This record gives sequence, structure tokens and C-alpha cells, in this order.
Amino acid sequence: MPIKIIHDCDPGHDDAIATMLALASPELEVLGLTVVYGNVGLERTTQNALAVRELLGSRVPIYAGADRPLVRERISAESVHGRSGLEGPHLPRPTRGLEPQHAVHFIIEQVMKYPGEVVLVPTGALTNIALALRMEPRIAPLIRQIVLMGGSIDFGNWSPSAEFNILCDPHAAKIVFGAGVPLMMCGLNLTHQTPATPDRVARFRALGTPVGEVTAQLLEFFRKHHQERYGWEGAPIHDACAVAFLIRPELFKTGMYWVEIEANEGLAYGRTICDYWNISGTPPNCEVGLEVDVNGFYDLLLERIGTYR
Amino acid sequence: MPIKIIHDCDPGHDDAIATMLALASPELEVLGLTVVYGNVGLERTTQNALAVRELLGSRVPIYAGADRPLVRERISAESVHGRSGLEGPHLPRPTRGLEPQHAVHFIIEQVMKYPGEVVLVPTGALTNIALALRMEPRIAPLIRQIVLMGGSIDFGNWSPSAEFNILCDPHAAKIVFGAGVPLMMCGLNLTHQTPATPDRVARFRALGTPVGEVTAQLLEFFRKHHQERYGWEGAPIHDACAVAFLIRPELFKTGMYWVEIEANEGLAYGRTICDYWNISGTPPNCEVGLEVDVNGFYDLLLERIGTYR
Amino acid sequence: MPIKIIHDCDPGHDDAIATMLALASPELEVLGLTVVYGNVGLERTTQNALAVRELLGSRVPIYAGADRPLVRERISAESVHGRSGLEGPHLPRPTRGLEPQHAVHFIIEQVMKYPGEVVLVPTGALTNIALALRMEPRIAPLIRQIVLMGGSIDFGNWSPSAEFNILCDPHAAKIVFGAGVPLMMCGLNLTHQTPATPDRVARFRALGTPVGEVTAQLLEFFRKHHQERYGWEGAPIHDACAVAFLIRPELFKTGMYWVEIEANEGLAYGRTICDYWNISGTPPNCEVGLEVDVNGFYDLLLERIGTYR
Amino acid sequence: MPIKIIHDCDPGHDDAIATMLALASPELEVLGLTVVYGNVGLERTTQNALAVRELLGSRVPIYAGADRPLVRERISAESVHGRSGLEGPHLPRPTRGLEPQHAVHFIIEQVMKYPGEVVLVPTGALTNIALALRMEPRIAPLIRQIVLMGGSIDFGNWSPSAEFNILCDPHAAKIVFGAGVPLMMCGLNLTHQTPATPDRVARFRALGTPVGEVTAQLLEFFRKHHQERYGWEGAPIHDACAVAFLIRPELFKTGMYWVEIEANEGLAYGRTICDYWNISGTPPNCEVGLEVDVNGFYDLLLERIGTYR
Repeated sequence: MPIKIIHDCDPGHDDAIATMLALASPELEVLGLTVVYGNVGLERTTQNALAVRELLGSRVPIYAGADRPLVRERISAESVHGRSGLEGPHLPRPTRGLEPQHAVHFIIEQVMKYPGEVVLVPTGALTNIALALRMEPRIAPLIRQIVLMGGSIDFGNWSPSAEFNILCDPHAAKIVFGAGVPLMMCGLNLTHQTPATPDRVARFRALGTPVGEVTAQLLEFFRKHHQERYGWEGAPIHDACAVAFLIRPELFKTGMYWVEIEANEGLAYGRTICDYWNISGTPPNCEVGLEVDVNGFYDLLLERIGTYR
Repeated sequence: MPIKIIHDCDPGHDDAIATMLALASPELEVLGLTVVYGNVGLERTTQNALAVRELLGSRVPIYAGADRPLVRERISAESVHGRSGLEGPHLPRPTRGLEPQHAVHFIIEQVMKYPGEVVLVPTGALTNIALALRMEPRIAPLIRQIVLMGGSIDFGNWSPSAEFNILCDPHAAKIVFGAGVPLMMCGLNLTHQTPATPDRVARFRALGTPVGEVTAQLLEFFRKHHQERYGWEGAPIHDACAVAFLIRPELFKTGMYWVEIEANEGLAYGRTICDYWNISGTPPNCEVGLEVDVNGFYDLLLERIGTYR
Repeated sequence: MPIKIIHDCDPGHDDAIATMLALASPELEVLGLTVVYGNVGLERTTQNALAVRELLGSRVPIYAGADRPLVRERISAESVHGRSGLEGPHLPRPTRGLEPQHAVHFIIEQVMKYPGEVVLVPTGALTNIALALRMEPRIAPLIRQIVLMGGSIDFGNWSPSAEFNILCDPHAAKIVFGAGVPLMMCGLNLTHQTPATPDRVARFRALGTPVGEVTAQLLEFFRKHHQERYGWEGAPIHDACAVAFLIRPELFKTGMYWVEIEANEGLAYGRTICDYWNISGTPPNCEVGLEVDVNGFYDLLLERIGTYR
Repeated sequence: MPIKIIHDCDPGHDDAIATMLALASPELEVLGLTVVYGNVGLERTTQNALAVRELLGSRVPIYAGADRPLVRERISAESVHGRSGLEGPHLPRPTRGLEPQHAVHFIIEQVMKYPGEVVLVPTGALTNIALALRMEPRIAPLIRQIVLMGGSIDFGNWSPSAEFNILCDPHAAKIVFGAGVPLMMCGLNLTHQTPATPDRVARFRALGTPVGEVTAQLLEFFRKHHQERYGWEGAPIHDACAVAFLIRPELFKTGMYWVEIEANEGLAYGRTICDYWNISGTPPNCEVGLEVDVNGFYDLLLERIGTYR
């Protein structure tokens, strides 16, 4: 039986590819996409989600959620994803719109409807998940797992300490990491192992399909920033790691650790502090991704994206 | 035309008296009571709200809201209000229950229904109001005013820096104080001017009514803590100040200041920092209560509580 | 027998007047002036101290100390005291220079030489005192008292929370307030009670002496900032309060409190947090000035400054 | 010409071995040992330094410095180093004592005497170095380099974020890292690459000399904690890395980074935050040790310790 997931996202180049992977995988049943502000504002991220769905010919329902972080002011990542948040490819004009329900209510409703079955897969700021946990605290023990892209157990990408998604809303992250829900974290330490090098991009293009071509274009645009910023020959497909973990966990080496969020302002604001040596003695709250079989990861991605005709 | 208010409370001795004052005042139209965890847990505060309504013979609808703070762990004030949160008097068993709607949704719904008309009167932690602002950001410009009991521009009562209601949920307070909504704050610096001395308690008892008697008993119980803790001859009726301000603003001397919340942990965690000398140059966001005509305040309270037969 | 004091200062208009008061008072034996950066840089504050000594015809030795705070970057107060730190009057060119010894060593040496006898009177940043305490921890129990101008138990003057001297070096303040030495604090809440109104300034001028005239000019210059900034008709003579307290303690109403320094960055950085209601249960570490008999204060100041011919 | 160094230490097992290496190396001229509180209290660390000198038959002068951190309370590491701070071997009773001069004055004096020549090698808390920089700011541009053992660019050993030496006195570390002096940092990320496995310990023992035997005993005692705590088969010889870097820099791979100290309390208190991707754009202030040729390191150590007869 497929795993029921809700993909909570802020597309975003790698969000889009994560969605493609999820919707093409029979191991997963995507109950819906819930959208959050993030790489760009909510009007853009929802628009991008609709356009991706249109491209994929999917009918998965899409819900708009939070338009800003819980406590702090909004930051954005237009420098990475371009003004629209999904610069690069030409995407079709959406013919269907958003569902009227609030993303937070959809999350609560589905978790209550399928107790113990739903995996939340947030690949943006954790605001929607945090609001759901506070609006309906009874969902915490009913969530099967939260598999997220965010954080880092080595270095940050938006401050020396912090990764963008977590830094967007450190308070939401603190709520989520403290909720007692089984967590799996794909942080930068893991996702940086997945650069979309030119030859990998070429394999998507060689699929000869519209979705393969869009994927290639997304990766090419995304690459520019990473080339310039880090000197890498390809951009990591951060968000797809979280989805891939659910489909092929055997591609990943992970460890169980106590991970705590610094939600006080300061040099470590938004850091996912991993108690690697268990100095605190606190029991682990998070399965942390350490290594990924990058070839297996790309094989999976290529196979599934190849199923879109 | 009466002012539409929602009393957001965590009864609580002084919350109960604030509710009595509100429901007895023709200047106000109480749309509902929304209840939050606080002095004691949510099960108790909702139960207390129902019991107070029963005593008053009111039919105002009551809604349960948040059962915990946004980010931090819950603190409680059983040392002040007793185990039930409303120790002292015997209150009637409630014959009616809570409305099924979530307090946060009720707040959103009413503000949207009466744009520019609703005054929120929180006398507990600001969690419900903060959640409403984040679940539906469009309400911020539609709220007429938030008149709150909380904070202090001099000393705290739950830490040297912070007052209990704000310290309960400093992040919620930060959201509320940063929302751009007209704010009026009755902090400890103001409410400490209203001790219910024995002669004042005697005046409530002398009303010879059940509600007058309950009020006297509430104040007597509440007094013990303040006598012991501060050496005062009576407990301040903190929460009633916020309601009284709406009915008789002329009893209050106030000033406009920039007030900011410290929501980072540390010695000033939960402090309402008042930029009294406008050092920061930031425009004021809050009307701060500075002085109250305590005799006028008690006259009002006595008159209104006297209307319950 | 006169009280042995070391005046640790950063002249500064009110520092200068404090020094005048100290050197003219038979109740005090000024062992030396130790100078610290502060209102302006150390080159200027030492120069100003030399000029004031010259004006007074004194031979008190002067020692240069720290030129910067312990940990944080230096802030300065040229907006208040003018570029030289002592704008306004014309002061004589110093004919004698600084002692070669480091201020910190002088402090240590004198405290060790007169165990239990020396009162330190810092009216600037607490860097020199803190360094002395760390370079020679054995002096802590040998210091008779530290009577300081700094901090505030109500509002700040350099941030909404903090007073300038403490904010200059919050870490030094934390060291001093935690040293176990008897402390007396003249904060803004006290010193703001001493405005040098035009009629008070006129009394100094009417002395008809060079020092009286310089005092009047200092107060006139100092007034401008306070008029503009606070709308007051005169500048408080902050630093002279600390010296006056040693001479005429009966002019002051004080209370014993636990006062803690916030030395972490944030909205309360540099605040002297006064546990007025003893919420923490911590025993008092500081005698806090609450009220001053302002007429008595000016009478004292006028009498003593009048002794300079 | 040998490099003039001052070894600032808190012996300590690995401090002792670092001192042995330094004193046995013709590439270095050890001007003196300056001792700081740390692994245990100052009375013990000075005693240990004297005993190690006695064992080595050296006449290097030893100076006592700070007995506590600048601002925070003292922490200690008796759990790692045993009650004496140097449990394990039997060391000779010292026949010579400490120099009368304060360690901080010795550091200042030597740096002023040999401008641009002296390398400071702190392998404990940075309190002495920080005090020297504040007592005499003119030394900063005259120090040739500070090569320190402390910090970590991955995980901490005394909190999830922080390494012991830095956490002992984060404010001192902030002063040192901000002083503009050329820095080289041997953090845990580097030193953890040097476990003294049983076969390595055996090589020291096989030297058949008193110093070889003591080294073996030190490493055996030190190993217990690391076996238990980390499951490692040997303890890293942290402090000796800093000395080895000065003798054989070619054994080390390093990188230049901006490293900042979190000196505010919180989850990252005492962390050496390395801006690995230069997110901040700040120019590097520190050469960070990344990799060490562990066999080369042990060969060096064995060769030099073998010179003691």
C-alpha cells in the first residue's frame, strides 16, 4: 500500500522536481500539495505549484497556507530562484485553481482522517506544519512521520550557521522539532552530495519529453547560482532528497540524534544543532541523513521523471 | 452604539471580574468569550469561564482556544489563583457548554464580519490573538483595537523583567505588538494602582447579591497572595482595568510609546520594553496606561456588579 | 577620618563636576583619578581630566586606564558632550601630566595597601574596575564599597533599556555587579531628579569665581542636549550624585535589591535589571538610589564649589 | 632561528604532552609557560606545570595567570582529567617554584620586547591572552601569531555546539578572535584525527625512558574517558597539534575562514562559528586546521619525546 503524503512546499526549482518525483511514484499517494511562502512570496509559490501541476497533467489538490513566518520578518531567496521563484523554463498557464480550504486545515483534516498514516514532507519553511500543530495539538501523535528538507549538521547556506528553510521560520522549526513526531531530516550536509552536473542534466534532456526538458531547464538555471556561490559544477536537488528517502530509504545512510533549533536571535539563529556525540544525554528526536548514494538517487529520479509523457 | 468586544481570557480571579464588568456594561456588546490556557490549564480555564457565565445568568457564547504557547513550554500560576484557577467562592455547576467552533476561528470570523468594529480584550496570554493573526493575516487592518492586560513598563511579577501574561507566550506577544493594530496596554505599572483593600471588598459584599458576594470572595482569596508576596493590603484587579478603559477612558492617563517585546530567552525574556524617551526614534505602536483614578474605577465596578440581581 | 576614594571617570561634563565636588570635600580623601575611555576616546578623557585638575589647582595623581571595552566595540557620546568631551568652557592647558602607572595597577595597589578602606567611585564605563578584579581577584573582599553612577531601574538613555555607562561595557558591569563587593548605584532613575535649571546655573555663576564660572558653562552646554532630547529645562548632574552620596548619604533614599546585568546582546543589552519585588529570591547585591533631596544636593554642590578661589 | 613561543596552558594530559614536544624541539624557543585555570583550578594547573617541568629537567620559567574566566562562572573538566587534572602517572615533586610575575605581564613584556617575533600557543581557556590584549592594546599588532587548540568547526565536546577551552571563556575567545592577530586554530574537527590507539601508546612505552613511560601512562588514563564517551580506541592528543603545527606545518591541511565566537548565552554559547562558504562576505581571520597526517604527527612526537633521557 502506498504511503500517504502531503508535500508542503514553496516551489522553487528543487521543490518542483520533488513534486514531480512524488507524483510519479507508485510507492506514494500524494493527498495534496500545501504551499507556503518561502523562496518567493505566497502568490508566486502558489502560482508555481499550479503551473507545475498543469505541466504534469496531475489533478492533485493544492492548498495555500501561511504567507509569512510565525514571529520573525520574512526573508526571501530571489537571488537563488529568480524573481518568479521558478525562473528558467516556460511553464503552462494553469487551467485549475487552488482549493478554497486553508492548507493548515487540510493538513489537520487529513491527519485526523488517516491516523498514523500520513507522512508530511515539508521542503520549505515549517510554518504550515507548526500552525497545524498549534491549532490542533491532537494531531501530533497521529502523524506517521515528518520527512523534511532543511537544516544542516555542518554549515549553513543563508548564514554561517543556518540553512534557508529553517532560518525562514526558526520558531516554526522549534515547534516541529519539539513535537514528539518521528522526524527525518535531509539537511545541506546530505543534499550537497547531489550536484546536478552537466552530464546529469543531459540525461534529463535526453528523455526527450516535455517534463524531462523542463527538469533540465530548471537544473540549468539553478546551477548558475551554485556555480557562482560555491564553485560547484551543478546545483544540489535538495528537496527531492526528502521524497527519494520515502521511496528508496536504502539509498541513504542516516543516524539518530538529538537535534535542537536555536530560535533566539544571534549568530546561530535558525541552526539545527545536532548533538552528534550526545553530550546532552537527551534521547534522539531525529533521523538525520548523512550520506546518499548519488547515482542511485539520479537513477530513481530519471526513471520516474521519464514516466511523464 | 455599544462597542463590540471579544474578551479573550484565562479565568482567573481578575478575569472573572473583568467578564462581570463587561457583561454588565451597556457601553459594550460582548460577542463572545474566547478562552486560553494560562493561570491554569485550558480544561480549567474553560470550566471556570462556563461557571462564571452560569453565575451571571448570561448567554454569551464561549469558545476554547489554544492549550499551550506558540513556541515555549507552558508556565502556570497556580500559586496565585489556586489549583482550580478560581479558588475561593463556590460557583454554580454550568448547565451549558462550550461552542464547537475554535476560538481562533471565532475571532477571525467576527473581525471579518464586522470590519473595523471589533475590539479584542485579551486578559491572558496572547496565543489566541497571535494564531488568528497568522491564520488569517487580513484581519490585522480590520481589528478596531486590542486593549490588553499584560506587561509592565516598570517591574515584572513573574521575573524581575516580565509580567505573567506576556511571559506565558512572548512570541505571541511579539506577533501582536508587531501587527500594526492599535494597541492599548494595561500593564502592572497601571494595574498595581488598584488594590482591593478590605474596605473596598466590604463594599462588594454590602451589595447583598450573589454576584457581589462572589466578587468579595474572589478578592479575598486573591488578596492572600498579594499580601504575602508584596505586603499589600489588597490584590490589584488587573484584568478589569482593560475593560474599564473601554467604558470610562477618562479615568485613565495614558501615553503613546514604542513598545517592543523581548522574545529571545535571557534576563529580559517576555519584557514589554517601553521606549519612554523615544531613544530609538521608532513611531509609537501602543497607548500605555500610566495612571488610573482608582476611586472612579471602583465606583464603576461597584455600580455595574450591583446590576446583577 | 576622611573616606579614601578613587574616582574612576571619563570626563565629561558631569564627571568634571563630580571631581570638583570630591576634591573640595574634607569628608573624602581622593587617592587618585583613574581615567577610562567613554564619553569620548581615552586621549580626550585623560586630557580633560588633566585640564580639570589644572583648573582646580589640585595635585591629585591621574592614571590612564582602558582605552576600550572588554568585549564589545566602543560606543561614544559625542552627541552629548561635544567633540572634546568637555565642550563649553575654556579650560587651562595642563602643566602636569599623567602618572606612568596603569590605572588598573593603581587601583589594585591602593586597595591592597588600604584593605577595607578604599571606596571606588566609577562614573564612566566599568572597564578599569572589572580589569582590576580579574587581574587581582584578591581585591574583591578588600574594597570597602563601589559607589557608581550608571544604569537605571526605569528607562535607559542610550537604548530603551540601557544607560550609557553600563551599555559601554556590559561585560565589565556584569563582573562588577557579580563581584560580591558592596555596591551603591546612582542610576538615571535617581540622577534625573537633579536638573540644573537656569536658576541653579545662575547660582554657580553668581559665585563669581573661575571654577563657579566654568561650572556654569559646563551646565549650560550640557543643558542643550537635554532640552532638545527630553524637553527638560536643565541637564542632570548624574556623576556628582555618586560623590554626594558619600558625603551626605542622608540626602538620599535608597533600597537594597538584587540587580543583574544583561550582558547578552538583544533588546535589554546593558540593562541593570532590578529585582524590585524580589521575584528571584536572590539576596540583594546593591543599594539602589531611589530619591534625592535635590535642594540639599545643590546646596552641597554650591557650598563646595564655592571653596575654590 | 627558532620561533619564540609562549605556551599558555592548563595541564592537563594533552597540555603536558604539548609542553614536552615544545621543549624538545629545536625549531622552537620556549620563552615561558603561562598557566591558566581550566581542566582543573589554577592551584592544580600550576602545580601540574611545575611537575611536568621537573620531570623534563627543564628550566623554562612558569608564570601563573588568571584563576577564573572574564565574565562567566568557571566550569571544569575533572571528569576527563581526574581530580588532580593530571591523573595517571606518578610525577616528581617540583624543586622549583613559579615566577613572581603575573602571566599576563610576562606575555605583554615578551611581546613588547620581541616585536613581531612571539607566537602565543594557548592550549587552554583564552583568558590570559585576552587580559593581555586589554591591559596593553598595543601588543595586538606585535604578536606574530596565535596558534591555539580550541573550538571546532563540526561538533562540540562540552555542549553540542562548543569545545571545552572556548566554552570555558567565550568572552576571552571573542576578544582573541577579534583582535586582528594572525590566528591558527586546531579545533576538535582536526584533533579528533589523532587518537592514541594502544599500538601508538606502546611505541611511547617502548622508548624505555621515564618521559616515554609517563607519556604512555598519560595517554592510557586519557583514553578511558574517550573510550567510554565516544567509543574510540584512543584519546586524541589535542594540544600537541598546535605545537606540531609550528614545527611541521606541512603535516597539516588548512583553510582560511572567517571564524566568529558566539559569546551570548544560548545553545551556541562558546561555538567557533566558521563561515565555511563565506556567506557573510567577511574576510578570513583564521587559518583553520582541516586535516593532519596522523602518522607524521606521531612520528614527530615519538622522535622528540625520545630525546628526553
